Amino acid sequence: MSNYKPIPLGEYLFRRIKSLGISHILGCPGDFNLTLLDHIYNVEGLKWVGCCNELNGAYAADGYSRVRDLPGVLITTYGVGELSAMNGVAGAYAEHAGFIHIVGNTARPLQENKIMIHHTLEANPDHGVYRGMSEPIRAASAFLNDEATMASEIDRVLITAIKTRLPVYLFVPTDVVETPLNATRLEQPLDLNLSTKPDVEDLIVKKILDAIEKSEKPCILGDVLAKRHAVTNETRRLIQLAGYPAFSTILGKGLVDETSPEFGGLYNGSMSFPGIKEAVENHADLVLNIGPHLTSSNTGAFTRQIPENKVIALHPHYCSIFGERFEGIHFVPVLKKIVAEFEKNKDKYKKQNSVTRFEIPTIDKSTSGPLRQSYIWQRIGRFTKADDIVFVEVGTAQFGMPDASLASNVQYETQIYWSSIGYTVGGTLGALVAAREKGNKGRVILVVGDGSLQMTVQEISTYIRNGFTPTIFLINNDGYTIEREIHGPEQQYNDICTSWDHMKMLEFFGGRQKNFQSRSVQARTIEELEAILTDSEFIKSDRIQVCEIFVPRLDVPWVLRNQVDAHKARVKAAAEVQKKTWDGLVLAGAFT
Amino acid sequence: MSNYKPIPLGEYLFRRIKSLGISHILGCPGDFNLTLLDHIYNVEGLKWVGCCNELNGAYAADGYSRVRDLPGVLITTYGVGELSAMNGVAGAYAEHAGFIHIVGNTARPLQENKIMIHHTLEANPDHGVYRGMSEPIRAASAFLNDEATMASEIDRVLITAIKTRLPVYLFVPTDVVETPLNATRLEQPLDLNLSTKPDVEDLIVKKILDAIEKSEKPCILGDVLAKRHAVTNETRRLIQLAGYPAFSTILGKGLVDETSPEFGGLYNGSMSFPGIKEAVENHADLVLNIGPHLTSSNTGAFTRQIPENKVIALHPHYCSIFGERFEGIHFVPVLKKIVAEFEKNKDKYKKQNSVTRFEIPTIDKSTSGPLRQSYIWQRIGRFTKADDIVFVEVGTAQFGMPDASLASNVQYETQIYWSSIGYTVGGTLGALVAAREKGNKGRVILVVGDGSLQMTVQEISTYIRNGFTPTIFLINNDGYTIEREIHGPEQQYNDICTSWDHMKMLEFFGGRQKNFQSRSVQARTIEELEAILTDSEFIKSDRIQVCEIFVPRLDVPWVLRNQVDAHKARVKAAAEVQKKTWDGLVLAGAFT
Repeated sequence: MSNYKPIPLGEYLFRRIKSLGISHILGCPGDFNLTLLDHIYNVEGLKWVGCCNELNGAYAADGYSRVRDLPGVLITTYGVGELSAMNGVAGAYAEHAGFIHIVGNTARPLQENKIMIHHTLEANPDHGVYRGMSEPIRAASAFLNDEATMASEIDRVLITAIKTRLPVYLFVPTDVVETPLNATRLEQPLDLNLSTKPDVEDLIVKKILDAIEKSEKPCILGDVLAKRHAVTNETRRLIQLAGYPAFSTILGKGLVDETSPEFGGLYNGSMSFPGIKEAVENHADLVLNIGPHLTSSNTGAFTRQIPENKVIALHPHYCSIFGERFEGIHFVPVLKKIVAEFEKNKDKYKKQNSVTRFEIPTIDKSTSGPLRQSYIWQRIGRFTKADDIVFVEVGTAQFGMPDASLASNVQYETQIYWSSIGYTVGGTLGALVAAREKGNKGRVILVVGDGSLQMTVQEISTYIRNGFTPTIFLINNDGYTIEREIHGPEQQYNDICTSWDHMKMLEFFGGRQKNFQSRSVQARTIEELEAILTDSEFIKSDRIQVCEIFVPRLDVPWVLRNQVDAHKARVKAAAEVQKKTWDGLVLAGAFT
Repeated sequence: MSNYKPIPLGEYLFRRIKSLGISHILGCPGDFNLTLLDHIYNVEGLKWVGCCNELNGAYAADGYSRVRDLPGVLITTYGVGELSAMNGVAGAYAEHAGFIHIVGNTARPLQENKIMIHHTLEANPDHGVYRGMSEPIRAASAFLNDEATMASEIDRVLITAIKTRLPVYLFVPTDVVETPLNATRLEQPLDLNLSTKPDVEDLIVKKILDAIEKSEKPCILGDVLAKRHAVTNETRRLIQLAGYPAFSTILGKGLVDETSPEFGGLYNGSMSFPGIKEAVENHADLVLNIGPHLTSSNTGAFTRQIPENKVIALHPHYCSIFGERFEGIHFVPVLKKIVAEFEKNKDKYKKQNSVTRFEIPTIDKSTSGPLRQSYIWQRIGRFTKADDIVFVEVGTAQFGMPDASLASNVQYETQIYWSSIGYTVGGTLGALVAAREKGNKGRVILVVGDGSLQMTVQEISTYIRNGFTPTIFLINNDGYTIEREIHGPEQQYNDICTSWDHMKMLEFFGGRQKNFQSRSVQARTIEELEAILTDSEFIKSDRIQVCEIFVPRLDVPWVLRNQVDAHKARVKAAAEVQKKTWDGLVLAGAFT
């Protein structure tokens, strides 16, 4: 072949990744991926970011995906590494924050001969067993064992990662890393086109525009899959052009710029601020729902009740208009065509209903005294500045922070649906890497609880190692408060190790770095917190800093309290009418 | 039924566990296991030990199993918890250090209706998907969804845990925790009898005794499955009665008491000290191999070459005599019968070959100057005292510590086959719990590297929380030295975060505990290390203490160097005779 230029598989893989715009690879080295890792350094502009462990690495890859609008890349090793990452991959699958998971595998002949090499199961020497275990939590995978298809398989899997925003796997045996592939193939960019049936898309667009034109009081409900599929800007532009009231969901918070005149508040079913549920479910006659994720935590525990005949839903797997469903049509090309139409003819879709911007009520007007959750979340919200990135941990924080009002273009991320505590400490590493890559101007802020922190704390050292200077709000409420609220407030199993001296954390992780600078402060009262949050040095966030905030152990956000109260009432009612013990407990299960 | 006494399922489960002799339950709370955890407190003498995260908890349950001679118990929650523990379960499977993994699941009606409750996959709402993922890494499991069989299913799974020493799973939906089971059943102890075919066992015993009687130079090779199946005492007693030379493998180290007159050294194929390979493979005419685990890391990288016609192998799945294999016969009843025969007629089996106790050579006789690996491992060995428990981390430590000579009845544990770095930090928690439960008189010693520590460091706070006072030897060699030796000595991916100030670690994790006492010391030279290890306060180990030992980043134990050199020579030779690039790399894969 005249156009055959050999390139080692490892380099081919990383060149493809780099061509997508990705400049950092996360992971942990292991003896089955070392020779593969060598090739990272052969691709200009590509960098390796080592993580303390693989679960944190998976969280970081997920966090990168959320911030970068491109899938993160995680590299682990056979067995021990890939299995450690499992929960992080599943979370990325559940919340569509997928990444590319590359696993260094044993050499093919070792696999064929079922050699009892380390990391193999002594009672089951099939080296493919771990590949099988991750099957339910990935959208595509390739085991690179056939020279004839290695290049096309790599391409196929990378394309799936971009199109689905779900996790994908590449399994790379050690003996194929140097296999020559044809570099000429790299001259052809990957085909990332999401448009599969342009005629059907045009039909959908026409139907949607007609419906919008006919409606009197349309609104826009922005949800998380719009963020995940990298159309935050398109969604915001549509809101701006249309001028309709625009709402976010819990997982979609921040998608609608909270400083925009169209901002209508956070819609979370019955767990919304007064007026919002009515505005979406009753007042509006058309709800353009972009990127819905109809799950417990994102629908006010299934209290979302928008009549189907009002909803236009744009989803990666389908588009639906008042119940008429078009399967297999990706929403992104549809949305882009709608925006293009609004750009051309926005007056055509103007409505009479004047938008009244929703002002989030201040729920605690105290100015002094001990800190409570009613105060802190909204105060942290006021601390945000334009372009900040905020990662909010699973637990009470994710129920409280939705009350906060965010500055313009703040990216807000929480893993409230997958809800794996400790996620944000890893996720923030990915956010920091992505923010640097993008040249983001804002700060990166982590809001984490004392119990969650203990799951994944070591990754804070990776922030330090890479010179990142996030601001960490550490909410210390003496244990797993969200669980105390759900069940067993005084049970010992909801306690955590309380001997951690958080004021020494940064010195422990960073103390041996040359010229290390950090800031560690504490607040027990509103006065103390105000002094910190108005301090210009703290605001600048030019060194890594921790602000430990103490709140009472049984203090929780109102949304969480309401949800638990409603649940307990349901359980009680059920118990009264039902005889069989377990029927009542089923309902208990329905919340927990 | 007259003999029907109702007891909630949760309490039934924990009473059964307690009846086995287990007094501690490890794990992390989550909203799908909270009501189950309540029942722990209803069983007298049963205690909950909360862990910082589930992977560490799994390591701890594995460590408990190793030390307690009973399976550990780990409780996690649906999805997030059980998946985080996955690698720890797989390791326990690979090394037969199984434990009982109890997973709190969603209520059955939620499962039947595929409700999109948190921790469920949005694109695949089958709540059973995670149960399927762990199928390859367990010996038995039960999903407790049928009232009629719940009690028998619990019993079946617990029995399998004890008999196989492999991991088992119990999946407990929230709505069955209070289901009434019949407490009368608890009056019948679980049937843990390992003897399935007594007549076949008798035949095997007879054949073995005949063979031993006929042999002139028999030896005993003790391996890890004897430890795992709780016959350390029986094995040692047999050695004592027989008076034959007795060897341990790498994973079995400590099984043969290293102070006993019969101790012949560590047999690790070509990676043994001079003379040992010959003694086992050539000199002996019969090798009684108790509990073999024939895997890469436990056979000197497959350099074990004992002729089959000399070997009697006693394994949980089979017994074999000079190649004649009896499948499905568990070795424990066979071993016990052999010991009983020796108790009665030991003179009958006396041999002429006088035993010469193997004295481990001192490989570094330096008395001053910078520390090197050739010095430190044997020095740590001399630090051990009778009844100590020593957990040795994956990495250079597990290649170096086999050179150490251990005090009497020291329990030595390493995860060299599964080789998941960070294992020992969690494993040591389980060891501490088990040691307390057993009333073990010795100290608990952790030997860990700087890179491994970063994987799982937070669990050190759980030692503090529970008042444990282990001694931690932290080997600081500036990164993943074992990987530098294998590939990429100067590659950036083998670096770790070096800013950790280990001297502040205990103060960070324990600083807020009332009257907290700890000790943190460093050694860069032999003189400094000697001063520490001869200090009576340090020897006492009455407070938690860290001794950080600095060694050069490219310094490795001779066994590791030999193994890598041999491997590289093989790769080079292969490359010379083989044309295709990947054939050479296959061999590279064969080591790594």
